[in-house]
Amino acid sequence: MTEQIGELVAPTRLMMTPGPCSIDPRVYRALSTPLVGHMDPFFIGLIGEVQTLLRQIFQTDNRTTFPISASGSGGIECAVVNALEPGDEAIVCINGTFSERMAIIAARTGATIHRVEAPLGRTVDPGDVRRVGKGRKIKFVGVCHGETSTGVITGLEPFRKVADELGALLIVDTVATLAGVPLNVDAQRIDVCFSGSQKAISAPPGMAPITVGPRMEEAMRNRKTPVQSWYFDLTAVMSFWGKDRTYHHTPPISLIFALREALRIVFEEGLEAGWQRHRQNQQALIAGMEALGLELFVPDPQDRLPTVTSIRVPPGIVDARLRRQLLDEFGIEIAGGIGALSGKIWRVGLMGYTSQSKHVLLFLAALEKVLLEQGFHVAPGAGVGSALQVYSHAEPVGADAKK
Amino acid sequence: MTEQIGELVAPTRLMMTPGPCSIDPRVYRALSTPLVGHMDPFFIGLIGEVQTLLRQIFQTDNRTTFPISASGSGGIECAVVNALEPGDEAIVCINGTFSERMAIIAARTGATIHRVEAPLGRTVDPGDVRRVGKGRKIKFVGVCHGETSTGVITGLEPFRKVADELGALLIVDTVATLAGVPLNVDAQRIDVCFSGSQKAISAPPGMAPITVGPRMEEAMRNRKTPVQSWYFDLTAVMSFWGKDRTYHHTPPISLIFALREALRIVFEEGLEAGWQRHRQNQQALIAGMEALGLELFVPDPQDRLPTVTSIRVPPGIVDARLRRQLLDEFGIEIAGGIGALSGKIWRVGLMGYTSQSKHVLLFLAALEKVLLEQGFHVAPGAGVGSALQVYSHAEPVGADAKK
Repeated sequence: MTEQIGELVAPTRLMMTPGPCSIDPRVYRALSTPLVGHMDPFFIGLIGEVQTLLRQIFQTDNRTTFPISASGSGGIECAVVNALEPGDEAIVCINGTFSERMAIIAARTGATIHRVEAPLGRTVDPGDVRRVGKGRKIKFVGVCHGETSTGVITGLEPFRKVADELGALLIVDTVATLAGVPLNVDAQRIDVCFSGSQKAISAPPGMAPITVGPRMEEAMRNRKTPVQSWYFDLTAVMSFWGKDRTYHHTPPISLIFALREALRIVFEEGLEAGWQRHRQNQQALIAGMEALGLELFVPDPQDRLPTVTSIRVPPGIVDARLRRQLLDEFGIEIAGGIGALSGKIWRVGLMGYTSQSKHVLLFLAALEKVLLEQGFHVAPGAGVGSALQVYSHAEPVGADAKK
Repeated sequence: MTEQIGELVAPTRLMMTPGPCSIDPRVYRALSTPLVGHMDPFFIGLIGEVQTLLRQIFQTDNRTTFPISASGSGGIECAVVNALEPGDEAIVCINGTFSERMAIIAARTGATIHRVEAPLGRTVDPGDVRRVGKGRKIKFVGVCHGETSTGVITGLEPFRKVADELGALLIVDTVATLAGVPLNVDAQRIDVCFSGSQKAISAPPGMAPITVGPRMEEAMRNRKTPVQSWYFDLTAVMSFWGKDRTYHHTPPISLIFALREALRIVFEEGLEAGWQRHRQNQQALIAGMEALGLELFVPDPQDRLPTVTSIRVPPGIVDARLRRQLLDEFGIEIAGGIGALSGKIWRVGLMGYTSQSKHVLLFLAALEKVLLEQGFHVAPGAGVGSALQVYSHAEPVGADAKK
């Protein structure tokens, strides 16, 4: 047995997928801190610190703010099953795999889910939400802030407005945006907002930070039926994360150590500086990829998600073959398309620790080489050259300025 | 912000709780392996290895065997929501907090749950299950193999027999037993068996290994309604862990690295040797505690769970004060009672890496000191002396033999 399954010898990767991204060595050090118990007074103090940091990153005073012991998709499930009861109605805005996932999960509660759709690469029209919701009692409007499957960002204000008109809660998936893109839960009046640990926060995957505002808390108090999930029952889980600090389930202690360190790093840089860094590195990436003759998948520059850039696989290039060469030769992992976009786009993540100018430049150099070798003609050095021009016209920002 | 929430400086603990337990440094090393993507060919190969190791530890050929991305309580939820549909009936054997948890979670599916109870510290009578199930269509009988809240182990054979008579599936919670106590899923014909990563496997908390046999797979295929949870939908999650290896959710990659290493360590020692080591160290612990004048909570020696020993808090001693002194002075964490047993018992975990003779001896020495100082009279050295006698009459086994 142990002869067959030997020592763990993992390759070194530069993670340019839409999550997980590469991670600061400090976070690994925190991750491997020897365990303390989840009821240890030290750990009880520590979870309060993590909650303070999460409130700051969400920009909220919400009491109910903590990391769920699950992936970002678990965050979706937690948000919707706490909001919905059988017979309820909700609207989910769908423009890709992850916004559709919210609708799929919500439908399992026995509620009626109205799907308002947009073509892939575009944002949903808030007017469509208004039309669908009119005359109905809508429990929530669900929006995916950053649709990881296409690289589209959706502005939240018009959806807040429509939700207000409908008397509905606003649930926002910020898995791909939190810490990478401007977000202010209280100012934007988001009722439920969740994210994932492995995206722009740059901690390992396995936790889904969530924050729940007073209107959602009231909705939870007014439920007539129990939340169908015990594991994701926010009121129950808050027995541990709330003032009582009593046992609910054993949380992933090591991941919480790591999350704490990753959040500290976010605030050492500063939230605003981090947002600028994400934007600037994406601008350089886009300039470089366009100079290589590649076409962005999202047509409207305003809709482009700063943390995930999607580009069309050019004619004559085989998606999987190119990604495999990038991985084997450079240790760089990017993602392909999923669902209807499988084989048609690449998704390049620049999140958290991965979002650094040196990573952008290395990636463009590597991409040029593999494109050339796989028969796609590019002007030599055009990608790197164009990216460098972007950097030369801008001050380095955030963590990039300290390199 | 970062001035207030400083560097992570955690105390060093000997974890003698009923989980998480202390962890081999090799596992921390694996845990902090720099991330690779969950769709990386290297990781896809690695999850196959983890599944091979899990099949060996469960002693099963079940195809559907993998670690759920959740705590052990998530394992309970996964098991029961995949088995039950609204209108179904099931029987749950209840003799403590965790077996009761299965009933509570199962009731949220809309099924009717029949509770068959035993007093705390005892096992449920299989005859009671037979009587309750007679004439009913029972979907499953649920049993907690090791009831962590009381330190009771339940023999599985009579429950398998009754489940067969009722035409029911057998679901077994082995969170506190897997790798610490003899278990053979295929030979014992367990239909669904789940555990937790942080118990006798000695990996960090955050994963729940599960295995599902052919009868349960058939029941899942015959469902008329979707599983109410998307996150815990076994058929859907198996798109990643099954032969297709397609994306479902982002698993906690770092925890999977650690789990793999912890499982390798289990097999380096050998399953049988590990079981013996758990038994022997508990015998020494019991001898020592009885010599100190403490009374075991579980009256029948046959019912005592080898991984978790519960003792009554002696008269005149304040539970929390004693545990706090153990923690502050020796860095040893043991657990108090929960629910009805709060303040009445201590629960001492000897699981995985924690189950070592040196830990037993240190604990007995420390316990003697704090008992004395808190006013409970003990014969000097009696605890350690009695434990040493147990060890002197037995060969060191398993990992203890290599020290």
